[in-house]
Amino acid sequence: MLIDGREIADQIEYRVIKEIKTLSAKPHLAVVLVGDDSASRIYVHRKEEAARRVGIDFFLHELSANTSQEEVMKLVRALNADPQVNGIIVQLPLPEGFDEAVVLDCVSLNKDVDGISSRNLACLPFGTSIFVPATAAAVLEVLRSQKIKIIGSHAVVVGGGRVAGLPVALSLLGEGATITICADKTKNLGELTRGADILVSAVGRASLIKLAMVKRGVAVLDVGITRKENKLCGDVDPVVERAARFITPVPGGIGPVTVAKLLENTLKAWRLQNIH
Amino acid sequence: MLIDGREIADQIEYRVIKEIKTLSAKPHLAVVLVGDDSASRIYVHRKEEAARRVGIDFFLHELSANTSQEEVMKLVRALNADPQVNGIIVQLPLPEGFDEAVVLDCVSLNKDVDGISSRNLACLPFGTSIFVPATAAAVLEVLRSQKIKIIGSHAVVVGGGRVAGLPVALSLLGEGATITICADKTKNLGELTRGADILVSAVGRASLIKLAMVKRGVAVLDVGITRKENKLCGDVDPVVERAARFITPVPGGIGPVTVAKLLENTLKAWRLQNIH
Repeated sequence: MLIDGREIADQIEYRVIKEIKTLSAKPHLAVVLVGDDSASRIYVHRKEEAARRVGIDFFLHELSANTSQEEVMKLVRALNADPQVNGIIVQLPLPEGFDEAVVLDCVSLNKDVDGISSRNLACLPFGTSIFVPATAAAVLEVLRSQKIKIIGSHAVVVGGGRVAGLPVALSLLGEGATITICADKTKNLGELTRGADILVSAVGRASLIKLAMVKRGVAVLDVGITRKENKLCGDVDPVVERAARFITPVPGGIGPVTVAKLLENTLKAWRLQNIH
Repeated sequence: MLIDGREIADQIEYRVIKEIKTLSAKPHLAVVLVGDDSASRIYVHRKEEAARRVGIDFFLHELSANTSQEEVMKLVRALNADPQVNGIIVQLPLPEGFDEAVVLDCVSLNKDVDGISSRNLACLPFGTSIFVPATAAAVLEVLRSQKIKIIGSHAVVVGGGRVAGLPVALSLLGEGATITICADKTKNLGELTRGADILVSAVGRASLIKLAMVKRGVAVLDVGITRKENKLCGDVDPVVERAARFITPVPGGIGPVTVAKLLENTLKAWRLQNIH
């Protein structure tokens, strides 16, 4: 079975739209984009479209690639201090030479709607994060929509990056799963992925996960994105669907749900800042 | 084979002593102990003895169990600001009701010799932490002393706590291992531990890891400590030694190496603050 991520995203957006209508002001989402990475620009554009759909004010702060880290942090601090701003995203990757952790940790905890500051990440295994990072929240949402039991399951996450693999793994750990994180030096990848009840791939290598590498009935969440002959591909070979309980396709799987979860986090940030 | 942790610790302490003699001042380690947990008191005492052995000035700041979180944070901030203080440890556990992450994240990054602030934890998978948490550093030290290849190995960590299991797992990930974290809801624990090339147990349950749960030749690091009939026990049944390449015993295994690594971190903190 293929998961229709757009449909799940629509449900989330529907709830968010309804709630936003009841607020005394529109939530304000600020996105900091440094440099002109073309993929980043596409992702930012998607967030902007989605924000507008649900009634979130979206402000893009563009800085050129030769902006210093200190200047970027100065902007982030100004956004932290601005009571109009509810959520702040620093779009990754930052240009070469930036210390991403330092910049991300500059975002106020109650505006960190991306949820990938160090504090948020480190609290994920203990369920004490303020915001669940959007990709991780999307994975959990899809699993819940399919009534997959996370507690006691074995989740194998391929790829341990700061934006996707690591937060997904730590969130699943926080939800009671046993987790395995496979990275680029992993041997016998197929043997490990075949042990998975829940398999998440977040590498960005087309068709990395093949049919022989999964066990029957596994829940497969494809978080990888690559462009191949001008077409978007995930990490999971589409024929894996034959064995899986379900797979999330690329495009139209985890992607739209991730964006919707970001909107939900922005709404949560508004509440944290306005309801006392 | 049993690892003699005391011998490895002695080697580290010998290096630390030699280096400290060359410094213009003794490193200063401040330990904040809130309440009167008896196990904490024993651990703090061990750190104090070790610090004195190597020529680190040790200062214990004791606060009663009914001290407020804000007061503890005020003390930590004062220690941050004190140029005489090189390393700060907030001894865990903190009393009921404390938000440990908030207090730990109050410690200046360049004085966080315990290495379990959120920033340090979140950077471990990427090798960009300033301090490797002492327990994780001890595990890496023992593995290196035995010439165990970490890159490409499968490390299974039983227990995902903030002080031991999680930092050990994330450090091993950062060193190129595939990692599995088993927690209290894990099913088929023995099946998972049998897949380990490197097995770390950090639960605190006597004889949790039995002979049938390991594969021949595994490197076993026992980080658990429990008291049973007034005797210290680890998580690993001593007969596991028959199958293992080595095991670290309790007591006398990882414990002394962890304390020695803390001294090494304190020396590093001194250098960070004094060499410009």
